[in-house]
Amino acid sequence: MPSIFSSPNPILFGIGTAKETGARLKELGCSKVLVVFDQGVKNAGIADKVLESIHAAGIKTVCYDNVLPDPPDWSVDEAGALGVKENVDGVVGIGGGSSMDTAKAAKILLTNPPPINQYFGRQGVVKTAGKPLIVIPTTAGTGSESTPGGVITDTKRNVKDVVAGIGCAVTLGIVDPELTISLPPAITASTGMDVLCHAVESFTSKRSNSFCDVLAREAITLVGKHLAIVCQDGSNVEARAGMLFAGSLGGMALSGPLCHLGHDIGKPLGANFHIPHGTACATCLPQAVEYIAPAVPEKVKFIAEALGSNVPGNATAEETGLIACEAIKGLMREINLPNLKSYGLTKEQVLAVAPEVMKLGLELAPMPTTEAVVRNLLDRAYDEN
Amino acid sequence: MPSIFSSPNPILFGIGTAKETGARLKELGCSKVLVVFDQGVKNAGIADKVLESIHAAGIKTVCYDNVLPDPPDWSVDEAGALGVKENVDGVVGIGGGSSMDTAKAAKILLTNPPPINQYFGRQGVVKTAGKPLIVIPTTAGTGSESTPGGVITDTKRNVKDVVAGIGCAVTLGIVDPELTISLPPAITASTGMDVLCHAVESFTSKRSNSFCDVLAREAITLVGKHLAIVCQDGSNVEARAGMLFAGSLGGMALSGPLCHLGHDIGKPLGANFHIPHGTACATCLPQAVEYIAPAVPEKVKFIAEALGSNVPGNATAEETGLIACEAIKGLMREINLPNLKSYGLTKEQVLAVAPEVMKLGLELAPMPTTEAVVRNLLDRAYDEN
Repeated sequence: MPSIFSSPNPILFGIGTAKETGARLKELGCSKVLVVFDQGVKNAGIADKVLESIHAAGIKTVCYDNVLPDPPDWSVDEAGALGVKENVDGVVGIGGGSSMDTAKAAKILLTNPPPINQYFGRQGVVKTAGKPLIVIPTTAGTGSESTPGGVITDTKRNVKDVVAGIGCAVTLGIVDPELTISLPPAITASTGMDVLCHAVESFTSKRSNSFCDVLAREAITLVGKHLAIVCQDGSNVEARAGMLFAGSLGGMALSGPLCHLGHDIGKPLGANFHIPHGTACATCLPQAVEYIAPAVPEKVKFIAEALGSNVPGNATAEETGLIACEAIKGLMREINLPNLKSYGLTKEQVLAVAPEVMKLGLELAPMPTTEAVVRNLLDRAYDEN
Repeated sequence: MPSIFSSPNPILFGIGTAKETGARLKELGCSKVLVVFDQGVKNAGIADKVLESIHAAGIKTVCYDNVLPDPPDWSVDEAGALGVKENVDGVVGIGGGSSMDTAKAAKILLTNPPPINQYFGRQGVVKTAGKPLIVIPTTAGTGSESTPGGVITDTKRNVKDVVAGIGCAVTLGIVDPELTISLPPAITASTGMDVLCHAVESFTSKRSNSFCDVLAREAITLVGKHLAIVCQDGSNVEARAGMLFAGSLGGMALSGPLCHLGHDIGKPLGANFHIPHGTACATCLPQAVEYIAPAVPEKVKFIAEALGSNVPGNATAEETGLIACEAIKGLMREINLPNLKSYGLTKEQVLAVAPEVMKLGLELAPMPTTEAVVRNLLDRAYDEN
């Protein structure tokens, strides 16, 4: 049975749209907003640009600029408390997934008592809409602007958990490629591979659906066309626009089908060895796509061709898988994505992750996933990528 | 400025999904539902199939089987009163746009006092979610399963108006190609052209956006591939699936960009001369696409090619427009779509519609639309199509 499709987050996409932020907040009736971002966004001058637009609309701001990667619950509680103390009537999140997810969770705390970790749950604990929330991505990666929830680290249980539902719903995503121009090549590469993982994994998930397939195919095509370019020349606005659009499409595509092998293996790799999320999820992607080719040969053929490879008409599923694997490895080399060895890891350390992967309860890859399969993917990724 | 994209209606698409209706209603907590359809859906045995699934899940039903085209307010009031009297806790709408829109509006009346015409308004008058609503399209046309509101005829003011917002929100669209197999060729052709109009007009609207473009391109491609086939061989399930999927995509694509010349001219044509909606909207589509080609030449080229025509690399915008016009005319001939003359109309009668078209306040075509332009399109459509 395919998954159900919907994409409820309203998204405004286009070059220069961030300048609209103030006007949109005014339309939403806001007079003072909590603006949530991290030091990177601040230092790149991006927060100031958005703040300028907000102030120009006559709206006051109070900034929470201490967003952290894998946002911890206490940081969300801090941001929420600041918003309550300052009596704001809206939230703006600017940045990558961490900033947008912190903003989503902080919005809950504007109208519900702290701490945030009482509101975890994929179905959404809070049942009432809160204050307006605008999120503004500055990386082409997470796609959090188009997803229904936020991922927060529960520091007591030491696990990542999810806030979801109407209580943290996005009122508007403003998706402006100009804000991604200054992103350094290494982050561009890692977040760009996250986009590819979202699109490829949702496209090939056992729970894929026809609508997500359309969006995922477009995202994969855009990554094939633009990712290498933005890693070489970050100032190419057209290519930046293609990647940022692909990021939002990836977020839309994954909401029903969800991800599988790339993310399931990438999450413990990232957590254990401090590998950036996109890089970690991409680690086994080439080999995983090869592995699933017998189950979804036409889809794997599409992936290979969208990434610039030629698949002969008479290619077997296995041959198609091999071509797709090489295509993804080629892209990873082209964008200088760090491999496992470059993090100084031994193969033993890497293989030790397999049992943790199995604990995630893998169900969505279109081929059976045993611990032996995961070990084999890790083994090959260590040697080949 | 592009429009904002969102597609909040959850949609389950696939062959055989209608058999899930009862199970899905049970998940939603329903025990007795109002089932809304028309005599055509009843006579085709489609309502019985869905009712069987609902009863198999142990859910009771009460049927409102008197849905009318261009659903009048009093019919919605009847349906709503029946639901209240029978104390239902959910609604199911089965059919084309009229049945789905009647169901959407009747849902409002389950939890708000009648009559329905106090709830008109594009922003949504009712601010609270009501009972669960499942809509099940039986034509590949209106796309009402993916749009946020319903069109109801206000019989006092003698105008069509809109119910919208959370009060009539779709809880789930079940989109099953098997239900469209029995649709006669003439209705298949007319509703199929409605799909093409939604996709082409939203794709070329001044308010088009990148997300809708992706969905519209897919819909146009599917129409080019499948519409002629389903009009010749209605039992071709793959082609039926392609068209029904295109219909849902068309509904998603138009929600932000909205439609322009085809629908703006088609609405008064349909109302004055009792021409089916899709046929009426398609009347000037070939000539309208030719007219707008200088503004959006790449998009018009895509349309021509998706409908099977070859556009030379060095074609001017005007030449591209002409090729696209011929491609759409060719498709209309291939599916035996009735033209204006076949309705026994004189050219004078047809041209007399132009002032009514202008009253709609056309703004969304990418080229200027004067009354002279509209007259010219009607004049040419009368002679050429």
